[in-house]
Amino acid sequence: MTPGVRRWDRDPRETIHPVTLRRFTIKDVAERAQVSLKTVSRVINNEAGVQASTRDRVQVAIAELDYQPDPSARSLRSAQSYAIGLMYDNPNPYYVIAVQNGVLSVCRENGYGLQIHPCDSSSPNLARELIAIAQHARLAGVVLAPPMSERNELVKELVDHGISLVRIVSAAADPQDGSACVFVDDRDAAYEITEHLIQLGHSRIGFLWGGKSHGSSWERHKGYEDALRDYGIAYDDALVIEGDYSFDDGFRGARRLLALADRPTAVFGSNDEIAAGVLAAARSSGMNVPYDLSIAGFEDSPFSKQSWPALTTARQATEEIARHAAQRLLQELRENAPKPTSSNEGFSPELVVRGSTAPPRPKA
Amino acid sequence: MTPGVRRWDRDPRETIHPVTLRRFTIKDVAERAQVSLKTVSRVINNEAGVQASTRDRVQVAIAELDYQPDPSARSLRSAQSYAIGLMYDNPNPYYVIAVQNGVLSVCRENGYGLQIHPCDSSSPNLARELIAIAQHARLAGVVLAPPMSERNELVKELVDHGISLVRIVSAAADPQDGSACVFVDDRDAAYEITEHLIQLGHSRIGFLWGGKSHGSSWERHKGYEDALRDYGIAYDDALVIEGDYSFDDGFRGARRLLALADRPTAVFGSNDEIAAGVLAAARSSGMNVPYDLSIAGFEDSPFSKQSWPALTTARQATEEIARHAAQRLLQELRENAPKPTSSNEGFSPELVVRGSTAPPRPKA
Repeated sequence: MTPGVRRWDRDPRETIHPVTLRRFTIKDVAERAQVSLKTVSRVINNEAGVQASTRDRVQVAIAELDYQPDPSARSLRSAQSYAIGLMYDNPNPYYVIAVQNGVLSVCRENGYGLQIHPCDSSSPNLARELIAIAQHARLAGVVLAPPMSERNELVKELVDHGISLVRIVSAAADPQDGSACVFVDDRDAAYEITEHLIQLGHSRIGFLWGGKSHGSSWERHKGYEDALRDYGIAYDDALVIEGDYSFDDGFRGARRLLALADRPTAVFGSNDEIAAGVLAAARSSGMNVPYDLSIAGFEDSPFSKQSWPALTTARQATEEIARHAAQRLLQELRENAPKPTSSNEGFSPELVVRGSTAPPRPKA
Repeated sequence: MTPGVRRWDRDPRETIHPVTLRRFTIKDVAERAQVSLKTVSRVINNEAGVQASTRDRVQVAIAELDYQPDPSARSLRSAQSYAIGLMYDNPNPYYVIAVQNGVLSVCRENGYGLQIHPCDSSSPNLARELIAIAQHARLAGVVLAPPMSERNELVKELVDHGISLVRIVSAAADPQDGSACVFVDDRDAAYEITEHLIQLGHSRIGFLWGGKSHGSSWERHKGYEDALRDYGIAYDDALVIEGDYSFDDGFRGARRLLALADRPTAVFGSNDEIAAGVLAAARSSGMNVPYDLSIAGFEDSPFSKQSWPALTTARQATEEIARHAAQRLLQELRENAPKPTSSNEGFSPELVVRGSTAPPRPKA
């Protein structure tokens, strides 16, 4: 075992013994990784222009020597919080993995561990649970994903308990509510999808809601509503069906829409899972997509490319969004104080047109 | 803030100060959660017969009071390793989420955090990286998923560095190689799938490999091979195509099989992603599944039920398998010594017949 590397089975009291207080310097890291000081500092400050293999070598050396780049990180670690937490409640594995990978990439670049905490956002004592988790695990801070991130009372309670956090929220503009976040403009993208269907010639456009606990569901519905209004198409309650962000609800909702006397010629599912459910429902009733029915989803999940036909959707840079949230969190941890005044970053998903949308058949 | 709950921003030296050495007892937990001592102990020992809501309340109390159920856990925590790590390298989000959820459920029942570590199993200094991660993060132990779990040299190196681990591996029998694992009999299930296709009347059965770095790929191919042999069907190299556990390789492989003069009437994809790729390839060349082509997958991913037609596959209790691996790990951590002699648990995926397989069309 390399000298200086601490074993976790050592006597914990060693940590206050002078000997182990000897800390390795950036020079030790450079020697061990056989690179220049400049390179080490580039890696530490996560600057461009360092080869992946070199970066790996430096990060391994930093980890092996347990080198602490900056004072705040040192204080964080000595307070035993060298991991951040990711809290989410989402049924879509593709979304969850993308968020995890985005946050994780930033954690690794900065020598943090990532603890994952899927939660039941409907739990009555959610706040207590999340606070207990964060404190028990000694988390340095937390990235809060929807829908928890969009419940202001919950967020306030976490902050009041001294938990540093950055939220990922759905919003058409920077909420500027004093709590750091990265916001995603679902409304604008949903408007574009609806507009795309209208411009193809559709006027009977079904809409399938996502779970109402998610701000994104409301924003996507608002975008749909706004586009119809702007193009002078009457909003028809019969074409709008509530449900969750799931394949099954997409399937069920589509069956209801397709059973209508004056059924829609296009359906906008609030995410790709819903749209995949619509696709299965259409196929199961012998319809030819897109000619008998146009279908659009949202999120650009991998399987939206893999269905037949591939789904028209909105590309949401989930991994990049999560990266920004994590970077913002680590920045605030370094500054050791949140900057409520500093403005938040926003993302806009973009329309991706594929084979599942086409003009409606001319009425016989 | 509740008395007794430590804030992570406290002075770390407090941890050796008598005052904070006052530990809460099981009685404190019972009072706080307003349940009987028996109930607390049931929850701690993870026994049945406790309502989920009660269990939650007790776990919150345990976390809030930072109560340490057992001495070894206490020692682990004071050595700052109260989290376990999950290391994996798998392109399938459904598989990864299932493994995470299985391990996580056990972590929560035992007051551990879970740190996730997706890795590049092809990295040259993987061992160094994993060791550095485990030591840097002070992990109490590690659940090692395929394919890393199946590389004996790597496993040995981790163990030699004092890392406690339990592996999830693909094997037809208990490897009994002295390192703890949970093993999955992919070979037997692959045999059943092939047998099912043969019994439907297929003799030209294509096989699409998963990544060869995964033991499961070899086991599934062996099951296919054995079934053909037992039913006296000659093994035809032209029908066996190498690739990865991905939709794209399934699509590409199927295109090659369907281009053969004497093309197969059935295709067995080594996982559901591959099978979904075969389905898309068949549909893109205007074939009617299952009548023109039978397709079988493996793993019973959610989307195997959602494709049209739904996929015949093998149900693999991934979450349950991961739970067992985590339970085994925590058991060994408590006993503070691995039991190489103790036997390992095995799982056998079971055949699930759905709409994607049918008898071949009679030859004209």
